[in-house]
Amino acid sequence: MQPFQLQIPTQARFGVGVLDSLGTETARLGKNALLVYGKQSIKRNGVYDTVMASLREAGVSVTEHPGVKPNPVLAHVEEGALLAKRAGADVVVAVGGGSVIDAAKAIALGARETGDLWDFFTRKRTVSAALPLLAVQTVPASSSEMNAVSVITNDATKQKFSVRSPLLFPKIAFLDPALTTTIPMEYTAYACTDILSHMMEGYFTSTDPWAPVQDGMVEGISRAVIDSTDRLLLDPTDLQARSAIMWAGALAWSGLVNAGVGGATIPNHMLEHPLSAHHDIAHGAGLSIIIPGWLKFARDRVSNRIIRFGREILRMGESLSGLSEAAQADLVISTLEQWYKKIGTPITFAEGGITEPLVDEYTVQAMVLGKTWGVPGYTEQDIREVYRLCGA
Amino acid sequence: MQPFQLQIPTQARFGVGVLDSLGTETARLGKNALLVYGKQSIKRNGVYDTVMASLREAGVSVTEHPGVKPNPVLAHVEEGALLAKRAGADVVVAVGGGSVIDAAKAIALGARETGDLWDFFTRKRTVSAALPLLAVQTVPASSSEMNAVSVITNDATKQKFSVRSPLLFPKIAFLDPALTTTIPMEYTAYACTDILSHMMEGYFTSTDPWAPVQDGMVEGISRAVIDSTDRLLLDPTDLQARSAIMWAGALAWSGLVNAGVGGATIPNHMLEHPLSAHHDIAHGAGLSIIIPGWLKFARDRVSNRIIRFGREILRMGESLSGLSEAAQADLVISTLEQWYKKIGTPITFAEGGITEPLVDEYTVQAMVLGKTWGVPGYTEQDIREVYRLCGA
Repeated sequence: MQPFQLQIPTQARFGVGVLDSLGTETARLGKNALLVYGKQSIKRNGVYDTVMASLREAGVSVTEHPGVKPNPVLAHVEEGALLAKRAGADVVVAVGGGSVIDAAKAIALGARETGDLWDFFTRKRTVSAALPLLAVQTVPASSSEMNAVSVITNDATKQKFSVRSPLLFPKIAFLDPALTTTIPMEYTAYACTDILSHMMEGYFTSTDPWAPVQDGMVEGISRAVIDSTDRLLLDPTDLQARSAIMWAGALAWSGLVNAGVGGATIPNHMLEHPLSAHHDIAHGAGLSIIIPGWLKFARDRVSNRIIRFGREILRMGESLSGLSEAAQADLVISTLEQWYKKIGTPITFAEGGITEPLVDEYTVQAMVLGKTWGVPGYTEQDIREVYRLCGA
Repeated sequence: MQPFQLQIPTQARFGVGVLDSLGTETARLGKNALLVYGKQSIKRNGVYDTVMASLREAGVSVTEHPGVKPNPVLAHVEEGALLAKRAGADVVVAVGGGSVIDAAKAIALGARETGDLWDFFTRKRTVSAALPLLAVQTVPASSSEMNAVSVITNDATKQKFSVRSPLLFPKIAFLDPALTTTIPMEYTAYACTDILSHMMEGYFTSTDPWAPVQDGMVEGISRAVIDSTDRLLLDPTDLQARSAIMWAGALAWSGLVNAGVGGATIPNHMLEHPLSAHHDIAHGAGLSIIIPGWLKFARDRVSNRIIRFGREILRMGESLSGLSEAAQADLVISTLEQWYKKIGTPITFAEGGITEPLVDEYTVQAMVLGKTWGVPGYTEQDIREVYRLCGA
């Protein structure tokens, strides 16, 4: 194990009906809430009414900032920060998936800072203040409700960058699995792909000779996600499966499962962000395109980890026996591809609706991201090669 | 999954040499530290000198309260609280195992409260203030460095009770695995037994039909503990194995792995506490006596969980095939007993040095504990039966 510091001060509040306490918890932090949400879906499924009733009953004034899109954009975040300042908001309430919570974090930051908000994403400035934030997770995937990270796309420069600060942890993550039973299977598949990818990054790139606690957590939680997704294919309203995915989604990128396995070498996110920055594609859908290509690229370097993934997570023990190491790794990769296809998330650019991949543009951005995040060892040629192996 | 609230605000600071920052972190919280530790072992192995040098270099005044024993006693805790008040201590630093950290929590509480400290353990009063606490874990087992619980024995009444409050979380858990390489194998075995038992409680008693995230974490971390303990039998200085055990020890009873599997039904701790309250026996040694008896008692009710434990944690897949359910469960229990024997922790009262078990006294106390902790469904007859199955 490698040295690490880990602190997750967010309170997870899990269970059907936990939104009932949203108003009183918001009132502890402020009297004027900026309510950040996305499209109109929370109005259709009743979550908006529940949230508003709880806030009003607790005497909290509400200013609304709707319209956060998947892959939230800087301009909309800047509008939100300006609105928060004008309204005198002293607390931010996010209701939505990872994009909404990420946007709310950036708004909570922008509401307390002056100057160019993007400077925090390019790491020119560090965060010194932010409004307190409560997060209601409705599409579990990103762990944004339990972590200190916000990922925002600069629509002017087409860059998808992140900021991280302990001040950005939500105070409470409200996790009501009943809110997630109406998520369409397509988006459920993207979300589960994202959850798995967050655990794979450290699992495949770990160079540590003995990290069985982390390996065990990744393997156990990954199996839980796969089994629960398979249950949802049969019954998308299965509350038990939704519950497991919601809790896995909160933990996967919280920092817990990868703590101690070495640096944050997240090549798949580095390679995917340019896709969802350039195209109207869900982050999880971009990941299921990237991951098989990346595994093919990295096969010989991390074949032991790929085989272990197949044995422990995809439960491929018997089908792997007797094969060469390379053949085992190949079979694991193709089995993962088949699982992606089964749950309905794309594994090629074409399936993801990207008919003309912009490899030059992606490569430039991935290089910048790799430098910003400290992902070691990827040349421009390597990155092009991964995109080629993804079918570009 | 069941509803839950989980918050672990403690920062885990893991790695060789993390004690270097103890002084500066203490100085952020106070200028007069009460240093709580146990026997003289931290003086022999150099930890005491490292701690004192770090505290002094940061300009922190130190008042010492040594002498915490395994199963720390109320009288000694009360002395510590009085000393903290007299010395004007504004921060507590604990250096030791779970007993020391538990004692330091009670002292941190006692230093800010008046009246009878035991009232907090009998749940007559709730905690409203405590001095801030930093914990240096030297014998990982209890998760005390990452949780809000303090277990203290009242030497006058022979009761081993606990108090729990968010105010008792250590601010930082310093986890340096190099400090643990000199722990004798005997105490390492007790510690690992304790770590495993913390995860077993929820695993065996869970009535939840689908909690794969929690099951996966328990199975993964438990395998890590077993494999690492086996490595230490070959080389007790194995830093990789010590690291895995240290991190598993911090997580196992932090609240994380059992969150969402239902109530804190911890029968094994209920049954063991009376043993270590009455006899000079390590808590972990008491647990390895209790657990096989409790499994035999509960066998028919939780046979599916016992078999799963054997298959997923003890890797007994092949040896179980073809057996009846009862025979499978029996084989799992005897395999666990053999593992306890292998690592050197007792599985009978006699092996634990208890030649005349005080079943009447244990039973009275276990009944009281069960009521205090809310462990459902144990009659006096049940409890006597478990002790009988443990060989009493």
